[in-house]
Amino acid sequence: MRETTDGDAPGWLTSTELATARDQLPILYINAVPVRVDDAGTVTHVGLLLGVAPDGSISRAVVSGRVLHHERIRDALLRHLEKDLGAVALPHLPTAPQPFTVAEYFPTPGVSAFHDPRQHAVSLAYVVPVAGDCEPRQDALDLVWLTPEEAASPEVQQEMSGGQDVLVRQALAHAGRLP
Amino acid sequence: MRETTDGDAPGWLTSTELATARDQLPILYINAVPVRVDDAGTVTHVGLLLGVAPDGSISRAVVSGRVLHHERIRDALLRHLEKDLGAVALPHLPTAPQPFTVAEYFPTPGVSAFHDPRQHAVSLAYVVPVAGDCEPRQDALDLVWLTPEEAASPEVQQEMSGGQDVLVRQALAHAGRLP
Amino acid sequence: MRETTDGDAPGWLTSTELATARDQLPILYINAVPVRVDDAGTVTHVGLLLGVAPDGSISRAVVSGRVLHHERIRDALLRHLEKDLGAVALPHLPTAPQPFTVAEYFPTPGVSAFHDPRQHAVSLAYVVPVAGDCEPRQDALDLVWLTPEEAASPEVQQEMSGGQDVLVRQALAHAGRLP
Amino acid sequence: MRETTDGDAPGWLTSTELATARDQLPILYINAVPVRVDDAGTVTHVGLLLGVAPDGSISRAVVSGRVLHHERIRDALLRHLEKDLGAVALPHLPTAPQPFTVAEYFPTPGVSAFHDPRQHAVSLAYVVPVAGDCEPRQDALDLVWLTPEEAASPEVQQEMSGGQDVLVRQALAHAGRLP
Repeated sequence: MRETTDGDAPGWLTSTELATARDQLPILYINAVPVRVDDAGTVTHVGLLLGVAPDGSISRAVVSGRVLHHERIRDALLRHLEKDLGAVALPHLPTAPQPFTVAEYFPTPGVSAFHDPRQHAVSLAYVVPVAGDCEPRQDALDLVWLTPEEAASPEVQQEMSGGQDVLVRQALAHAGRLP
Repeated sequence: MRETTDGDAPGWLTSTELATARDQLPILYINAVPVRVDDAGTVTHVGLLLGVAPDGSISRAVVSGRVLHHERIRDALLRHLEKDLGAVALPHLPTAPQPFTVAEYFPTPGVSAFHDPRQHAVSLAYVVPVAGDCEPRQDALDLVWLTPEEAASPEVQQEMSGGQDVLVRQALAHAGRLP
Repeated sequence: MRETTDGDAPGWLTSTELATARDQLPILYINAVPVRVDDAGTVTHVGLLLGVAPDGSISRAVVSGRVLHHERIRDALLRHLEKDLGAVALPHLPTAPQPFTVAEYFPTPGVSAFHDPRQHAVSLAYVVPVAGDCEPRQDALDLVWLTPEEAASPEVQQEMSGGQDVLVRQALAHAGRLP
Repeated sequence: MRETTDGDAPGWLTSTELATARDQLPILYINAVPVRVDDAGTVTHVGLLLGVAPDGSISRAVVSGRVLHHERIRDALLRHLEKDLGAVALPHLPTAPQPFTVAEYFPTPGVSAFHDPRQHAVSLAYVVPVAGDCEPRQDALDLVWLTPEEAASPEVQQEMSGGQDVLVRQALAHAGRLP
């Protein structure tokens, strides 16, 4: 794909320019909101990972992670879901690459609803039904299943950071389950 | 945003790890398919940039470009649209961050429908109605407006490369205008 | 379009069956959430129609109305937007028929988030940027422009009925503007 | 839901008006494109129902049917999928009500890409992964599974009618599988 006219000379960047530019580029992430659904596909529960932050506070989060070089988005989704939910979670990956939203995490708070102090991350967000047993890694995070009402409640929302409280409500809105 | 469990110790990567990882990460792009619409919003024409490739062949393309560090996607869309279509094109940017598709350009052909020999680029693709006059930069690319039938025709499709022929048909499909 | 196997003999229904069935069918609606956007497409304000309900209470609503026989959805959107916002509102209709959600209004409360005591209405919901002056009809409804924060506030939300409070928050979520 | 200003007196229609209007209203349908997916969610095959039309020609179609009064869209999807694919097809219904497109079938050809000589039908279209065994009803239609390339081929496309050839390609485009 040609960078159509991004510079004086449209066309390929040099390797040096590429290397320099990379330090300045946003990092591509995926966010997966794990859900339980009934036979008709209605979301009944949202899965939130639960961990202890460095300051001792409890923090809840959805599945997150980078997309690696030469990795397809759906393979990145599979990899991060397996890491966080175990090998027998049986996620039903989306058939379409269209995410329900794109969350832009900026290092500066306030530019968007999302914030990541370390980096500019752009995350493609998907709702992923999970049919199997979930076994978060022992050294990592616990997992709780909450109803849409619980997940959108102020108590739970304030236990998420970086804007993931908003992301969970966006996922519920997309699924038609915003309380 | 925490990389939930991407490594032995979940949590922040070190600066060195970040720098190393960046060389291995996909580059975030936007693709904008400029369109003319009638009063009811129906797409009547698709705008394709037209240029001469190094080998002398004519190549058509949609608006493409990187998202810069700390740049919002909608600002990247505006910037690339202005560069390619001029300052008075009056693009109607999408209200929602949800793209109509995500095009994954791999350096290896065949992994997906999209191919970029230089890099792994992941592109958020939007259909963007353009209401004003378009004046492509003189040193850059010309612009042609084609009907959906023309844009999807084999003659025009074969003048696009890297899978943008597919992307244009995906845009037409999304707009309900696939012939 | 053939009703694939909806009955013992797949294929056409008789005229009598059609007439009978129509009394039992949901009514197709559109919902349009009018918004003001800045140059980058970010939603800055949501337009809510304001009227006095039969019981004297103030009620806020988005643009709503039926799709008529042989009317395209985008023509129904145009017609209802013009009726509610006037002839010079200059709405930017969606290029794609894909709605941001489908709101199912049931006559029985609790089946979904949406309720219409008179009928089963299924509404295709769109966010529609409006660029011109809005002049609600004198005998009809007034119009107020609210920020996303105001539109999602409990005070405003409780002034909407039938689930349109949820619909407005779904629209904000889709636009990346849910507070 | 109030019909905001659809008539001289905004507000409820009378029962008589409702009854009259119903004869003039479009009929709500669902279209489901059954697909087989691999572990990563990639569409590998599209299921097309196969039947003999009254004129003896072979016709292929996706799953189609009306939404009944007081029936949720997801229940209509389940019902029609079960009728056409059998009770053990194990469809994975969409978590979100947002369809990938809305197909407007008009009785007059040429108004849109879709045509139904009997009626004005508006169809919400979904891609539905099917995990189980499919057993079309014996008195009804056979089912074939085709690759995306086969389903989009001119030979197969010309065996569909009413615009479902376009609908299948729209589904493939949405799934990132348009050849």
